[in-house]
Amino acid sequence: MGIDPGLTRCGTGVVEGSVGRPLGLVDVSVIRTSSTLPVWQRLAQIEAGLEARVEHYRPDAVAIERIFARSDVSTIMGTAQASGVAMLVAARRGIPVALHTPSEVKAAVSGNGRADKAQVGAMVARILRLDAMPKPADAADALALAITHIWRGGAQARLDAALARSRR
Amino acid sequence: MGIDPGLTRCGTGVVEGSVGRPLGLVDVSVIRTSSTLPVWQRLAQIEAGLEARVEHYRPDAVAIERIFARSDVSTIMGTAQASGVAMLVAARRGIPVALHTPSEVKAAVSGNGRADKAQVGAMVARILRLDAMPKPADAADALALAITHIWRGGAQARLDAALARSRR
Repeated sequence: MGIDPGLTRCGTGVVEGSVGRPLGLVDVSVIRTSSTLPVWQRLAQIEAGLEARVEHYRPDAVAIERIFARSDVSTIMGTAQASGVAMLVAARRGIPVALHTPSEVKAAVSGNGRADKAQVGAMVARILRLDAMPKPADAADALALAITHIWRGGAQARLDAALARSRR
Repeated sequence: MGIDPGLTRCGTGVVEGSVGRPLGLVDVSVIRTSSTLPVWQRLAQIEAGLEARVEHYRPDAVAIERIFARSDVSTIMGTAQASGVAMLVAARRGIPVALHTPSEVKAAVSGNGRADKAQVGAMVARILRLDAMPKPADAADALALAITHIWRGGAQARLDAALARSRR
């Protein structure tokens, strides 16, 4: 399951498959919250939406976009908090979490770390053999995260787990 | 209950009382997480620690330090995520949440919005009639948040609730 975190739109995408085999779309959705609500109610709605999806689809792993402090300052706090909620929902169920940067995702799905939103959306549609580009962009980005994780995530997750064990 | 959010140290303080009456210390503690763990495990530990305290003390309200995007960039992401977890723990139980800025807290407890940590700690000890300043600073800050909320929070929380209702 890929999650593109955001307070206003939090994209989620579930993809099945493995390296070297065709990937399939299982689900794509966007959790929306109203900017007229206080942040804490919006975070609680995002948690409830992610809980429902994780409970239903039982993903093997959750891939979340890595947020940087240098991102857009006006939305950074909400995005960081939404990503924290996404990590929490996975971690407390023991589901492995991986963070991928936007350029890693762009490079994985399109071969170009600076691809624009339309290129990423077009490649996601092609990889998953969809008739149209998933919309909005948050939905396409969540699927791109899930694809990236399957294609490059497995080995990295095993390495992280081994490192975490060795640190204890 | 006041919460001074942080990934490495998350201070919590429970204070009882009301405006015009002496306030009393109920509990003060710090949830610590190891920087060798992945962020998601640290957030899950903070959630578990806050859950246990909220479950035990059943606070009437939770006051959390308001984080600004212009704060220290090296810790801003973790602090924002820890504050998101704190908001979530309160919001999903229906406990009213209030955010207070550091200068509001300093002004409320010491009369000076630019008071330093030692001044805030000394005033917290005096207000709660403690023999010594609560340590570490995160613990004192959490108590200062709880005191601030009691002294200035009640009216604001009722106003916010009325505004939220009128927006629906």
